[in-house]
Amino acid sequence: MAAAAEVSNKGVILKQFVTGFPTEDDMEVVTGAVRLAVPPGSASVMVKNLYVSCDPYMRNRMSEHNEASYIEQFVPGEVLATFSVGRVVASGHPNFKSGDLVWGMSGCEEYTLITNPESLFKINHPEVPLSYYTGVLGMAGLTAYAGFFDISKPKKGDYVFVSSASGAVGQLVGQLAKINGCYVVGSAGSDEKVNLLKTKFGFDDAFNYKKEEDLNAALKRCFPRGIDIYFENVGGAMLAAVLPNMRMNGRIAVCGMISQYNLEQPNGAPNLFCLVAKRIRMEGFMVLDYFGTYNKFEEEIVGYLKEGKITVVEDVAEGIENVPTALIGLFSGRNIGKQLVTIAHE
Amino acid sequence: MAAAAEVSNKGVILKQFVTGFPTEDDMEVVTGAVRLAVPPGSASVMVKNLYVSCDPYMRNRMSEHNEASYIEQFVPGEVLATFSVGRVVASGHPNFKSGDLVWGMSGCEEYTLITNPESLFKINHPEVPLSYYTGVLGMAGLTAYAGFFDISKPKKGDYVFVSSASGAVGQLVGQLAKINGCYVVGSAGSDEKVNLLKTKFGFDDAFNYKKEEDLNAALKRCFPRGIDIYFENVGGAMLAAVLPNMRMNGRIAVCGMISQYNLEQPNGAPNLFCLVAKRIRMEGFMVLDYFGTYNKFEEEIVGYLKEGKITVVEDVAEGIENVPTALIGLFSGRNIGKQLVTIAHE
Ligand SMILES: NC(=O)c1ccc[n+]([C@@H]2O[C@H](COP(=O)([O-])OP(=O)(O)OC[C@H]3O[C@@H](n4cnc5c(N)ncnc54)[C@H](OP(=O)(O)O)[C@@H]3O)[C@@H](O)[C@H]2O)c1
Ligand SMILES: NC(=O)c1ccc[n+]([C@@H]2O[C@H](COP(=O)([O-])OP(=O)(O)OC[C@H]3O[C@@H](n4cnc5c(N)ncnc54)[C@H](OP(=O)(O)O)[C@@H]3O)[C@@H](O)[C@H]2O)c1
Repeated sequence: MAAAAEVSNKGVILKQFVTGFPTEDDMEVVTGAVRLAVPPGSASVMVKNLYVSCDPYMRNRMSEHNEASYIEQFVPGEVLATFSVGRVVASGHPNFKSGDLVWGMSGCEEYTLITNPESLFKINHPEVPLSYYTGVLGMAGLTAYAGFFDISKPKKGDYVFVSSASGAVGQLVGQLAKINGCYVVGSAGSDEKVNLLKTKFGFDDAFNYKKEEDLNAALKRCFPRGIDIYFENVGGAMLAAVLPNMRMNGRIAVCGMISQYNLEQPNGAPNLFCLVAKRIRMEGFMVLDYFGTYNKFEEEIVGYLKEGKITVVEDVAEGIENVPTALIGLFSGRNIGKQLVTIAHE
Repeated sequence: MAAAAEVSNKGVILKQFVTGFPTEDDMEVVTGAVRLAVPPGSASVMVKNLYVSCDPYMRNRMSEHNEASYIEQFVPGEVLATFSVGRVVASGHPNFKSGDLVWGMSGCEEYTLITNPESLFKINHPEVPLSYYTGVLGMAGLTAYAGFFDISKPKKGDYVFVSSASGAVGQLVGQLAKINGCYVVGSAGSDEKVNLLKTKFGFDDAFNYKKEEDLNAALKRCFPRGIDIYFENVGGAMLAAVLPNMRMNGRIAVCGMISQYNLEQPNGAPNLFCLVAKRIRMEGFMVLDYFGTYNKFEEEIVGYLKEGKITVVEDVAEGIENVPTALIGLFSGRNIGKQLVTIAHE
């Protein structure tokens, strides 16, 4: 086999560990070179990244970890790892061949050598927009699905509240709740997002939490009978307001707490005694634990997409240079819908 | 039937609604009169209270409730309701006759007319110390049992941490944990209590939280591998320290948060993101929901008591005049073991 040609490979590296809110200066786009081949004898796979995903949890990896964390810290000077959708361009692994479409943990760069290809998912439905595999059919979608069904255990007629509701996870949670006969209200950070929730995603109601003087009053207005399920994406003041509005035997699926990710000290002092008085179950979960159930999820969601029962809103940035802006935008609510970046149009 | 004689009836009333820490002045012992009979035609039961229970939740009833609470507020000028152990002295109810021993919701007074006797439990084991029915065989015991088994779902070998561990609920939780093959550590507020935990209740380890400079370090010392089950009785700073020490898939049975009951604003800002990273389930419960399972519980615990597998420590005050002191003592840790007050030696 002739040696593969070397091509240029742009990528986004972490310049230094971050404290507080991340800025574009914490990252840098650098140009390297790569051979579109796998090391002889290895079972690796070389992937050409088409879309990369920007996700809130990446902020955690930008911090220097003083204690063991649930996920490894990034290494300054190295390319950021992220979920991507890509095409296999070289493979030493029997399960993958050139041309295969895959999604999974990869890098914020044009080409990534995946040394553990068992972690990749084959894309079984290339007929839907491929970028969906960064979101509704990828990690965020499975998060919504697992958190909503396995953790919140919805029943028909339940009153469901979703924070960060127009985002990648939230938009799917709301639509799954509607499909399952729940009453669902979302909060989001702009009128445009609130409008999306009501007109596009079919939420029964929605509010702009930045415009509400009193979150407790907003929740009382939207849920005069209280909340059965809170799908928690933000934490902090919203959680504090939600707790006294929960109903008896309510469930809080703790998916994330983005309002806390850039703080050195967690804020808010929610009245956790509500858990006792109302017999509330508050449970955290990690999407990784559900990766084994991916295929069933993929089929179900693809079905809904084809039937038009689920709508997707993506916020697509163009070109690897825009990864830093897109990523930090998550923490100011700049993104409208699932944030991703197109790296290549094949 | 000749009209029953009128006898004097001392009781403890709430003088005014309480804010902050309660004091003896918030209550008053008053002397009324009562006829030892039930109103003709009623299905009520007149109970002579032998022991009354002092419980932390009573503090909530001393506050004026601005929002609906899980339990009604006390009425200033009226006798405090509480769990008691007593003997029926007159009955209009077919299930009860004079002489029956019962426990259940009654009043902080010598004689109480119970208008809903269906809420009373018959005492099936008068051969054990009767006062136990205010604690290990009463509401606190059932709380420990339900919270430990139904909420924390223990497995053999689990690492269990119990706060307020020498108290009515905590002492039983720890012993049930040992019986079920767990490793159990307790915290308490004095060296004497810590000693009790280690020598009398069989805890594997214990610490005096008031003497620890750093609760996190104390927990790390006692649980180098982390905590599977936290039986939460206190909230606040302890909960904040426990969360980062929980293990993967840990469970927090939220029984109470006594450190918060006298605060106008809940304190502490625990890092609840730990729930996500470690897939922790934190669940509140109320013993009332388990009253239907009481008989099974009673038989099991009586069995353990007779086999010497469970030890009981009570803090017994003598005479109704001492109810206010005993009750407020719960909030400074004055009680060593289950706090109760003897009202009559029959
Ligand atoms: N447990 C898991 O396995 C798992 C997996 C994936 C994601 N997650 C979590 O799920 C949540 C949503 O993730 P996503 O991918 O769907 O992100 P997203 O909602 O698409 O984007 C983040 C959004 O968070 C909101 N936000 C940012 N700062 C905020 C603040 N201080 N207070 C309130 N809202 C704020 C912004 O929307 P607004 O304009 O509405 O403020 C922003 O658009 C995150 O907490 C994430 O960490 C968890
Ligand atoms: N969910 C339910 O259905 C239910 C039912 C019954 C009881 N409970 C709850 O269970 C818990 C224990 O009740 P119990 O009857 O067994 O009471 P207990 O432990 O016998 O007595 C209360 C003890 O709380 C501790 N304490 C007081 N103030 C504190 C503070 N600021 N910080 C830390 N500890 C403090 C003191 O012990 P130290 O000397 O160790 O500080 C005191 O002795 C309470 O939170 C109660 O509300 C819940």
